Amino acid sequence: MTMCSAPGKVFLFGEHAVVYGKRAIACAIDLRTTVEVSRKSRGVHIHSAFKDEPDKNLYIKTAVKRMQKCADIRNVNIAVSSRIPVASGLGSSAAVTVATIGALNEEFSAGLSKKDIAYMAYQTELEVQGAASPTDTFVSTMGGTVVVPDMRTLPPITCGIVVGHTGISKSTSRMVSRVRTLKEKYPDVIDGIMDSIGDISARGEDLIKQNDYRSIGELMNVNQGLLDALGITIPELSLQIYAARQHGAYGAKITGAGGGGCMVAICDDKNCKEIATAIGRSYGDSFISKPTAEGIFIQ
Amino acid sequence: MTMCSAPGKVFLFGEHAVVYGKRAIACAIDLRTTVEVSRKSRGVHIHSAFKDEPDKNLYIKTAVKRMQKCADIRNVNIAVSSRIPVASGLGSSAAVTVATIGALNEEFSAGLSKKDIAYMAYQTELEVQGAASPTDTFVSTMGGTVVVPDMRTLPPITCGIVVGHTGISKSTSRMVSRVRTLKEKYPDVIDGIMDSIGDISARGEDLIKQNDYRSIGELMNVNQGLLDALGITIPELSLQIYAARQHGAYGAKITGAGGGGCMVAICDDKNCKEIATAIGRSYGDSFISKPTAEGIFIQ
Repeated sequence: MTMCSAPGKVFLFGEHAVVYGKRAIACAIDLRTTVEVSRKSRGVHIHSAFKDEPDKNLYIKTAVKRMQKCADIRNVNIAVSSRIPVASGLGSSAAVTVATIGALNEEFSAGLSKKDIAYMAYQTELEVQGAASPTDTFVSTMGGTVVVPDMRTLPPITCGIVVGHTGISKSTSRMVSRVRTLKEKYPDVIDGIMDSIGDISARGEDLIKQNDYRSIGELMNVNQGLLDALGITIPELSLQIYAARQHGAYGAKITGAGGGGCMVAICDDKNCKEIATAIGRSYGDSFISKPTAEGIFIQ
Repeated sequence: MTMCSAPGKVFLFGEHAVVYGKRAIACAIDLRTTVEVSRKSRGVHIHSAFKDEPDKNLYIKTAVKRMQKCADIRNVNIAVSSRIPVASGLGSSAAVTVATIGALNEEFSAGLSKKDIAYMAYQTELEVQGAASPTDTFVSTMGGTVVVPDMRTLPPITCGIVVGHTGISKSTSRMVSRVRTLKEKYPDVIDGIMDSIGDISARGEDLIKQNDYRSIGELMNVNQGLLDALGITIPELSLQIYAARQHGAYGAKITGAGGGGCMVAICDDKNCKEIATAIGRSYGDSFISKPTAEGIFIQ
């Protein structure tokens, strides 16, 4: 029996622009999905926490199918539990895919490296979704703070993180497609905005190395405006973002595709509680999290 | 006795970026300030509608002082009334300055052309404020739709305009200075955003020529995100902007320096009332206006 867990993530900078090859920075957070595999059963059985999310089981099934090419996996029981809200931009699909592959790799001695796991998880997301970014699967596998698309790791950030969850489900592919339509209609304008988001990530990378969280927050606020310019924000996310800023966050922005899902604020640890309360009062739910250096983890 | 009126304005595109030489587009609206001059009194007497705004009287006094160099103006009674909310980004200072100069020019046969009036009004704002943009005074003098900084006039737009007024007073110079601080700290990022705003105005100009109000609104929404990125929006303005968009506006954004003041929405004429009601319900006041081709006007 093997238990393997993998974390969710937030984007500090660069979502949407990363689709067009611009730099982005993501950070693993200590919300995790855990997959337990054991050889008790005959055939492949999946017990998933994602009862209402048949899609999530597709990630698990596809991961198993791919792992079956690397090892003799015929009789296996797979039990999944997760603390990551689904369809929220926190990388829940990536975490379940990574943790599934990691657990099978360990239990059946498939011999995959961390990089192999990240790559196979990316291929799995590609197969399930038709299109995918390698970011979520890479961050979930490696943990810490990661610069995409070149997948460099930075020192872990050490400030507080508060996530606001609107509970409004969103479709990443629909939001990406909406931005593409806008970009095709106004290429000069939107290309310029994508460049600016890339510039923010570049500057943000320096600030992360300097642990300058106040300035990182300031740039997250600028990035949020650019996401608003791309048309992917909604009133409920704005309410949460304003609430976080007004209660002492260094900065706050949407994380992920927008149109629903989550926002993220960074702050001094001592302000997390007040900010989380303020976000929860403004709309939806909130939870306090923290950055984690730990990616895939065999228990 | 002469009565002269001058209109307020909204920015369709480009405020803040225009400070850095980028293109902007402003549009005169049918809210007007009226100045009546007569020679009844001894000395110069000002009866202003701006009782709570001593600053506004400074514009009038400075305009008189400058006009005294062009004509023999010693005994004059000046009565001002205005429908333009003050300190709201609608160009109330420019309108009172332009209307004062225009009325004195007519009554005392100073022989100034419209261009002269616009220039003297700009010089007056410069003297009173220390810094000024020539936009407000030019648009108020000429009316219609104006491209700055080159001061070209476009065909008048003919859609509905709804203005939301937060009633939160703001200081243009403080907001301009805040943006400058951000720009000095993150020059690459903010220069890029200023360029994008200029690109929006350039594209917006084509769309105005084509009367494509739906697309103009779309670009106003993009522009609003970029203003948010510059840090000059506030929750109350966001509430009004979302309300306008959700009730059928083609687009909605802050007009002017932000940090308070007003937002503007453009829409089909038949939707003005619903949008104005929705804005008023969300926060502050709203009023329905319309574009005007008429700048300075002697009654």
